[in-house]
Amino acid sequence: MQLIRFGVSLPDHLIKRFDRLIHRKKYPNRSEAIRDLIRHTLVEEEIENDAEIVGVLTLLYNHHQRELQDRLGRVQHDHHDRILSTTHVHLDHDNCLEVVLLRGRAGQIKQLADEIIALKGIKHGQLYRTSTGKNLS
Amino acid sequence: MQLIRFGVSLPDHLIKRFDRLIHRKKYPNRSEAIRDLIRHTLVEEEIENDAEIVGVLTLLYNHHQRELQDRLGRVQHDHHDRILSTTHVHLDHDNCLEVVLLRGRAGQIKQLADEIIALKGIKHGQLYRTSTGKNLS
Amino acid sequence: MQLIRFGVSLPDHLIKRFDRLIHRKKYPNRSEAIRDLIRHTLVEEEIENDAEIVGVLTLLYNHHQRELQDRLGRVQHDHHDRILSTTHVHLDHDNCLEVVLLRGRAGQIKQLADEIIALKGIKHGQLYRTSTGKNLS
Amino acid sequence: MQLIRFGVSLPDHLIKRFDRLIHRKKYPNRSEAIRDLIRHTLVEEEIENDAEIVGVLTLLYNHHQRELQDRLGRVQHDHHDRILSTTHVHLDHDNCLEVVLLRGRAGQIKQLADEIIALKGIKHGQLYRTSTGKNLS
Repeated sequence: MQLIRFGVSLPDHLIKRFDRLIHRKKYPNRSEAIRDLIRHTLVEEEIENDAEIVGVLTLLYNHHQRELQDRLGRVQHDHHDRILSTTHVHLDHDNCLEVVLLRGRAGQIKQLADEIIALKGIKHGQLYRTSTGKNLS
Repeated sequence: MQLIRFGVSLPDHLIKRFDRLIHRKKYPNRSEAIRDLIRHTLVEEEIENDAEIVGVLTLLYNHHQRELQDRLGRVQHDHHDRILSTTHVHLDHDNCLEVVLLRGRAGQIKQLADEIIALKGIKHGQLYRTSTGKNLS
Repeated sequence: MQLIRFGVSLPDHLIKRFDRLIHRKKYPNRSEAIRDLIRHTLVEEEIENDAEIVGVLTLLYNHHQRELQDRLGRVQHDHHDRILSTTHVHLDHDNCLEVVLLRGRAGQIKQLADEIIALKGIKHGQLYRTSTGKNLS
Repeated sequence: MQLIRFGVSLPDHLIKRFDRLIHRKKYPNRSEAIRDLIRHTLVEEEIENDAEIVGVLTLLYNHHQRELQDRLGRVQHDHHDRILSTTHVHLDHDNCLEVVLLRGRAGQIKQLADEIIALKGIKHGQLYRTSTGKNLS
């Protein structure tokens, strides 16, 4: 990997506000903050274009439901080739959060997530999409 | 307004992907694209911090509803100090789209938008938030 | 249009929170609030599936730029078949907000919006997508 | 927990589209789909109101960076009272994804996430927010 350096010109007023933001967000310097903005916009493009993505599926449910746990296990096994990992957190006496990491085409991942979220007993489910990092350097 | 120039360093692979994006989005050069990314992130911060914003409220409804039109008119007049303009577009025989531009604190604008969206007969309403431009140069 | 009535069952705790939300958002009743939630999710699906949509493009710029205004006019005329209306608001001495309503396939609208946002002199541009209302009753 | 049943009326055209969506998303019945829509909107409200939330922070980075790993470990230990768990996935030879689950007020969580995302070497970081489930039944 080679670093390429080039010049950017910004109005002074804009750069003052940007520097304050950088400071608040604790970036070490402007380059790092700008790299982050660029990668962020590239990731958004990837997701729109149905490229291969990582899905982060959060599932909130009451863990006193044996049947749901069984069904969750089954659907995850049926799609084991798309599931990277599952993390389980006990939020309180009743609630647990399960975070399932998925990998595949944006469209496929959405379909699988929809199927899981629709399971009876899931209080709240949400799918977030991020990059596989393959094309980000 | 004064332009300030500074150097940014990016990995070559990242810059290649960024240049392709710039080309696809037809930016004249990297500086312009980076300025856009910076302003975009500043606007997002403004909105989160309940600063003064511009709200863009889209309302979709069937225009054969006299009563709704009256009520819409009334609520807009009650808040005329926050409403910049209203644009009305006839989408087809039945549907019309009304776009109301609002200005005020993020929280106030949301409350007013919620009230309007909740009116009986509105098929679909959505509030988008953008910047007043005051702090963007 | 015919109304169909059916029963929904909700846990009492959930219904209490929902009723508070309905009250805060000033919905006349639960049916109206539920209709809104359903239409909202249908609109999100439309946009994902590249169906025909309405685009709301907000453009913020300094109006002392004759050249930008000319270019903006030109690009809008080139695509007049996709542009429903343009609203112009004077935000302060320097800034103006232009809201362009567009209609077409989600992908086409995004491409056109990208092209406009990339014009030199646009401080901030953002595209929001909503429904044409055709399939919402 | 007690189930309460009430009637909802929907235009026939809207219910047909909703039933298709329910079928596609594999919900067992309309009640379950409507409960999901209601919980989803309640979670969005929670997050806006700076209530206690769960944050899901995804971090993408090249694992050949010893220094970054050390710094990541340190910042996580400094805030151990807000961190529920960390999951690490090896995406390919170079990239790894770390998913950090956080818990706290929406504002605090955002600040901590910003600090971590800004670390040199993080390719891409994103914070998603979801509910603690406490007020969802």
